Amino acid sequence: MKKLQLIIAALLLSFSCVPEEKINPEVDFEKMMIRIAELEIAEEHLDSYLFELKKEAKASMDIENGVISIFPMYEEEHPTQITIVEIYADKKAYEAHLKTPHFKTYKTTTMEMVKSLKLIDMNAVDPETMPLIFEKLNPDSVE
Amino acid sequence: MKKLQLIIAALLLSFSCVPEEKINPEVDFEKMMIRIAELEIAEEHLDSYLFELKKEAKASMDIENGVISIFPMYEEEHPTQITIVEIYADKKAYEAHLKTPHFKTYKTTTMEMVKSLKLIDMNAVDPETMPLIFEKLNPDSVE
Repeated sequence: MKKLQLIIAALLLSFSCVPEEKINPEVDFEKMMIRIAELEIAEEHLDSYLFELKKEAKASMDIENGVISIFPMYEEEHPTQITIVEIYADKKAYEAHLKTPHFKTYKTTTMEMVKSLKLIDMNAVDPETMPLIFEKLNPDSVE
Repeated sequence: MKKLQLIIAALLLSFSCVPEEKINPEVDFEKMMIRIAELEIAEEHLDSYLFELKKEAKASMDIENGVISIFPMYEEEHPTQITIVEIYADKKAYEAHLKTPHFKTYKTTTMEMVKSLKLIDMNAVDPETMPLIFEKLNPDSVE
């Protein structure tokens, strides 16, 4: 009987939401700011632009606690079309990000390379499962 | 003198690339498949659609090893506009995903709810720093 209870408990657990200990208690999912940036880059400046973008994204992730994610991608068929998924802990973290030297350098250096920029405010469809996202890239966090 | 060496070592480490042990050796970044799905949902079906999408994304993340990420978002200003960032370990993992019961159920259940669907193949600008993405959501993986 005890075994059956254990099996049921295990089954319930495996289908339940993300276990509480997997969610960073310092991250308030209600306050989180998610944004998609869509950019078109001048073809002749693409290499220089990607170099600056990589530098800026890495510095933001490394140095700023409030930057949860800056994930830049380019379209396979049209590499000058860039999409960046940006996640900040809250509005304050975003405003602090705008004042960092690495962001300011990126902004001024790439100004002439960017043909168009569209910023779209987004929300997660399922904030509860967000901690699962991308964790398979990292062996430390695999259960 | 030893203290100075330690400080220099710490500084070097903090600015270096992602440490090797942070990268999942089972993930081959060259073979990885990244895709953005852009959908428009019929307003009257939005709640039902989001329910099905949540269920499908969670099942894929929980059950399929080859699904690195399925991250669905909606536009704050136009909630019927959905963007899903999908990452699969490789093409085989993607093809296996299409054959799963949870994907098939999602596809047939939501067919009438989706007004338009655009699939865009993407590449990461900086695959090396991908393991850092979103890890701040998860306290286990914070160094």
